[in-house]
Amino acid sequence: MTHIQPRPIVLLTDFGQQDAFTGILKGVIAAISPESNVIDLTHGVDPQDILQGAFLLAAACPYFPRGSVFCAIVDPGVGSDRKGICIQTRDYYFVGPDNGLLWKAASENRIKRIIHLTNPAYFLDSVSHTFQGRDIFAPVAAHISKGLEDIARLGKPLKKCVEYSLPDIQRTVDSLGLTIVHIDRFGNVTLNIEGTEFKQFVHNKRFSLAIMGTRINRIVTFYSQALAGELFLIESSSGYMEVALKNANAADRLGVTCRDKCILTVF
Amino acid sequence: MTHIQPRPIVLLTDFGQQDAFTGILKGVIAAISPESNVIDLTHGVDPQDILQGAFLLAAACPYFPRGSVFCAIVDPGVGSDRKGICIQTRDYYFVGPDNGLLWKAASENRIKRIIHLTNPAYFLDSVSHTFQGRDIFAPVAAHISKGLEDIARLGKPLKKCVEYSLPDIQRTVDSLGLTIVHIDRFGNVTLNIEGTEFKQFVHNKRFSLAIMGTRINRIVTFYSQALAGELFLIESSSGYMEVALKNANAADRLGVTCRDKCILTVF
Amino acid sequence: MTHIQPRPIVLLTDFGQQDAFTGILKGVIAAISPESNVIDLTHGVDPQDILQGAFLLAAACPYFPRGSVFCAIVDPGVGSDRKGICIQTRDYYFVGPDNGLLWKAASENRIKRIIHLTNPAYFLDSVSHTFQGRDIFAPVAAHISKGLEDIARLGKPLKKCVEYSLPDIQRTVDSLGLTIVHIDRFGNVTLNIEGTEFKQFVHNKRFSLAIMGTRINRIVTFYSQALAGELFLIESSSGYMEVALKNANAADRLGVTCRDKCILTVF
Repeated sequence: MTHIQPRPIVLLTDFGQQDAFTGILKGVIAAISPESNVIDLTHGVDPQDILQGAFLLAAACPYFPRGSVFCAIVDPGVGSDRKGICIQTRDYYFVGPDNGLLWKAASENRIKRIIHLTNPAYFLDSVSHTFQGRDIFAPVAAHISKGLEDIARLGKPLKKCVEYSLPDIQRTVDSLGLTIVHIDRFGNVTLNIEGTEFKQFVHNKRFSLAIMGTRINRIVTFYSQALAGELFLIESSSGYMEVALKNANAADRLGVTCRDKCILTVF
Repeated sequence: MTHIQPRPIVLLTDFGQQDAFTGILKGVIAAISPESNVIDLTHGVDPQDILQGAFLLAAACPYFPRGSVFCAIVDPGVGSDRKGICIQTRDYYFVGPDNGLLWKAASENRIKRIIHLTNPAYFLDSVSHTFQGRDIFAPVAAHISKGLEDIARLGKPLKKCVEYSLPDIQRTVDSLGLTIVHIDRFGNVTLNIEGTEFKQFVHNKRFSLAIMGTRINRIVTFYSQALAGELFLIESSSGYMEVALKNANAADRLGVTCRDKCILTVF
Repeated sequence: MTHIQPRPIVLLTDFGQQDAFTGILKGVIAAISPESNVIDLTHGVDPQDILQGAFLLAAACPYFPRGSVFCAIVDPGVGSDRKGICIQTRDYYFVGPDNGLLWKAASENRIKRIIHLTNPAYFLDSVSHTFQGRDIFAPVAAHISKGLEDIARLGKPLKKCVEYSLPDIQRTVDSLGLTIVHIDRFGNVTLNIEGTEFKQFVHNKRFSLAIMGTRINRIVTFYSQALAGELFLIESSSGYMEVALKNANAADRLGVTCRDKCILTVF
């Protein structure tokens, strides 16, 4: 029997860093598959914010190697009858709660199979109602990492799972109603519109973004191109448009939070 | 000579994430035992809070594989004459200061030997008075991980070490005086009573938990079972009872902090 | 061909933990060099604070094994014409922006070569203007880790790079004007003077450190030696002098922040 390099396991959760939750996930994985490379994507999703988790997961996915097993846990419904699922896509495996968290990332990578996790042979011996990341998702991810070839063994096939996308853009001929989907550590404010769509919409016209009583009409290519104190738009590294402020925190300056709305007008 | 897989090293500290302390521990370990799998249990213990560190260490331990080496550092007495110790238990090794931090986890896993770390052959060349995690505990953990078979070589055997348990429960016939031992990222408030003891005490009677002027008399099995805005009790994933609030922060709502008291009454 | 253990990759950034940035770096590395040991030195450098990043990098470096590849990113000028560089020193490789971040650590380890990163064969296929950590620095570090022997292949040799040191000490015969260069999680306040220089200057005289209206004239060897509530000086584990407060937060007590000034007088 040849030695197979285990698939990397990538963790995304809303567990933060102050507790033992993420450490326990890693302990469970190490006990099942000691040689797996476990990578923290982030544990800083705002508590129970499925939208933000889905956005970060989808943005980061394409940078991970083929075969990666994403174990993603933002799970306000833990212990209820919400399902646990594994989605196999063209390049990846996704394990987590069936609450929409996995949808954007998985559907962008072509979904091949969805399995409802019902086979306790791949869980911890005892499954709690409060921490199924530990009891179900981490063990399942560890078994896939270790070499489980046929994920059908994890449970029953599902025709579909909960779908959940970024908030819709509200469109008129000369305006777009946008939503803030993420604010990063630097205070950059990410909107639910990709750079390509933004450029198509604005084209050669002038634009104005109205956000919390402030109007922004400048766009730059890189951060340090802007003037000090000047709010501007930029295509962020995730491909989405963001509002930023050179060497300072745009979100604090604007007083905005996730899910706040703004309006882009062309004229 | 056959190749032996190094034992995993598990880190728990109060170092936080903003400084270089945890990175330096990992550098020291990589220099001694480059192939060790180093797992962050948590670095978010409140500064110098031995009680909280002991609680999290004991809660997480059982999920790690046999042979794991726990390097735990919450060390207000660093540089004084407090000892550095290694405790070998049935399944694990614990390395850290002799201030009670290791006691709960180690004693729950049956202690076999306690060694006072006095052999500088296993330390860094120069030992400071301010960062013995770097100079003593990480190097010792790395040597154990790498395959040190007889921990007696690390120093002198001790008959006992500093014991330190969760605060006692104050008992009367129809009430229990309880203490908050941890507040997690979600604002869930963990009490010093395990689910099994809680159930025995309450049995078929009605109960009321008086905490900061609020009375709680509801218990649920999983979080989303509760009503919005309703404080409730639940057996947490650590096995201890906690006060929680559906999709919100119970600790903020109650205005409590670690070590605050509350009273459980049955009637 | 024999199997070569990849060089460890050590990450230092100002990305924090709440976003996907650090996870994406690790995904990129895993895709290029799956067996590399990736170590987080810290991601908690204050946003765009090159001084603090340079200080932490230099303090931690000597504890990492020879051959380590430091990928350090605090990069306010990303996307502008600031260069990306790789510095090879006696023991290490440093990869990051040419803005001074790498200078202190690299120059303390004897610089052998500096290469301007211009060869896109070692970058991601598409290079953005906003996240060159992902597109350039992580891929380059992964290639070095994997075994790139001649870093000249990464680009063009440079005679020098941007130098950047700690703030200068202002000297008179009986006083030193000092600067705060770091405040750690415990509230310990690090000054830009090493323990050896402090001792030479104070020698057998009495001293007084004037900092934000407070005078400190006590020095101790280890933290718990001090009295409760008493501010004191101590040689920190980085070798620099720091102001601390036993079991409490000196920075909060003093109301100081990074880059604040203070004066040390002998008499």
